[in-house]
Amino acid sequence: MTKLAIIGPGLLGGSLALAARRTGQFTVHLWARRAEALSELCGLNIGDHVSNDLEEVCTGADLAVLCVPVGAMPSLLEQAARFLPAGAIVTDVGSVKAGVVRDLSAITGDTLHFVGSHPMAGSEQTGVHAARATLFDGSVCIVTPVQHSAPGAVLAIRTFWEKMGCSVRMLSPEEHDQTVALVSHLPHLVAAALVEVVSSQNSRALDFAGPGFRDTTRVAGGSPEMWTEILTVNREPLQKSAEAMIEKLREFITLLGGDHPDRPSRMNDFLTQAKVHRDRLRTPRIQS
Amino acid sequence: MTKLAIIGPGLLGGSLALAARRTGQFTVHLWARRAEALSELCGLNIGDHVSNDLEEVCTGADLAVLCVPVGAMPSLLEQAARFLPAGAIVTDVGSVKAGVVRDLSAITGDTLHFVGSHPMAGSEQTGVHAARATLFDGSVCIVTPVQHSAPGAVLAIRTFWEKMGCSVRMLSPEEHDQTVALVSHLPHLVAAALVEVVSSQNSRALDFAGPGFRDTTRVAGGSPEMWTEILTVNREPLQKSAEAMIEKLREFITLLGGDHPDRPSRMNDFLTQAKVHRDRLRTPRIQS
Repeated sequence: MTKLAIIGPGLLGGSLALAARRTGQFTVHLWARRAEALSELCGLNIGDHVSNDLEEVCTGADLAVLCVPVGAMPSLLEQAARFLPAGAIVTDVGSVKAGVVRDLSAITGDTLHFVGSHPMAGSEQTGVHAARATLFDGSVCIVTPVQHSAPGAVLAIRTFWEKMGCSVRMLSPEEHDQTVALVSHLPHLVAAALVEVVSSQNSRALDFAGPGFRDTTRVAGGSPEMWTEILTVNREPLQKSAEAMIEKLREFITLLGGDHPDRPSRMNDFLTQAKVHRDRLRTPRIQS
Repeated sequence: MTKLAIIGPGLLGGSLALAARRTGQFTVHLWARRAEALSELCGLNIGDHVSNDLEEVCTGADLAVLCVPVGAMPSLLEQAARFLPAGAIVTDVGSVKAGVVRDLSAITGDTLHFVGSHPMAGSEQTGVHAARATLFDGSVCIVTPVQHSAPGAVLAIRTFWEKMGCSVRMLSPEEHDQTVALVSHLPHLVAAALVEVVSSQNSRALDFAGPGFRDTTRVAGGSPEMWTEILTVNREPLQKSAEAMIEKLREFITLLGGDHPDRPSRMNDFLTQAKVHRDRLRTPRIQS
């Protein structure tokens, strides 16, 4: 059995514990700081061992996964690194990677192996009460090795996420951050802005929101604290994407306001292109 | 039994036929122009009578519902009006109302009663093959009476949609158009623009789209022809909403780029307000 240390007791940490136990290949040790979190984890019977003692959780662990907000990762890893055995592999589940990989690799040094991960699942929910073994099934996990990453550690992390049910893709940390700015952070900003436009222009209109509005804005229901951190850490790629969004809206407004005889065909081209690209999205994940 | 004439064989017309038959209170007469549509309707056993002869479908009808694109409504109603009995009630399912209500009321005059409707369901799908009796269950139908509408006709239309499973709300045609510009047309534009931003900035990023991106952009999969017409007809309220969207995005970009000590708390306020408003949306419809 592989000893798996999961540091952080939220939706991702809890679901990871359940998914790992489902394979029958891991003994799962879960760390949480707060007494309430510990008792919740015990009540839900989510890990094999649950503790607020990092030494207990990390000693002898083959693999440690940081499942806390990215701002809390460096200090926790500094403490955990004192207890993890030489050669242990460390990863994280942070939604941004360039800064995280740089900071955490500096802490693990040559003794431990750090490889960044970003399982793209469950971002609109929080709390261990929503944890489920199937959270990762069919979702994409982006693994972000760098030049100095040990190939064996990269392979181990890839295999680990595949066992959790993910489809694994490799990107550099910088490519990752630009990619998620486009497909995750910009949609979040757009969803939140859309809700606020409607609220401010005519709040009664929200009573008429149908399934289209509900889906378009679903991600705006995510944790403001978590998303403030994510959007701040990834602000440069996000600013670029948001400027591109404004340009694209401006392009359509110009089309709409113009009186060219080819307006209908140009609007139709705009919407057709979007439909073609939207329809090409990979098959939906099994479980959402 | 009420004789119901449904003019137009698409998703809405077909679903309406199924929903009306489910009540056991209507004989459903369906009109379609094309032979392929007629044979598809027969094959699916969707109406009690199916025909491409407007006279046959409209003669003796108590209620007629126009389920064709808004641009095709006036000429079809001009023809249908010759066969509908005096006092018959006419409605439509168009997604825009001010122009439709004005044009169709002018055709029905004093002999027939026109009251506009907009059942907010199924806009991202097309074709009678997707029709189902439950399409309207739990959805909102906006009914748009005007000053000269006969109270009895308004009540009849309200009751009709409630029997179809809708929750009915009343708005003036102009209030309707401003409301749907915000909760339906702007989200469609935003979803299409978001897909096109990602495609144009980094088309490989689409391979990493998760459930968040999929939901945020789902409506962009709707029929480009249908949406070109809807967005064009409602272009003035839509332009205003799209400008407000640009302003809101600009507000967030400024926040993100600034270096004020209160940046985190102001970003958190922005996202928290959006979450609060999003979480307040009325209970999801039963069937989507």
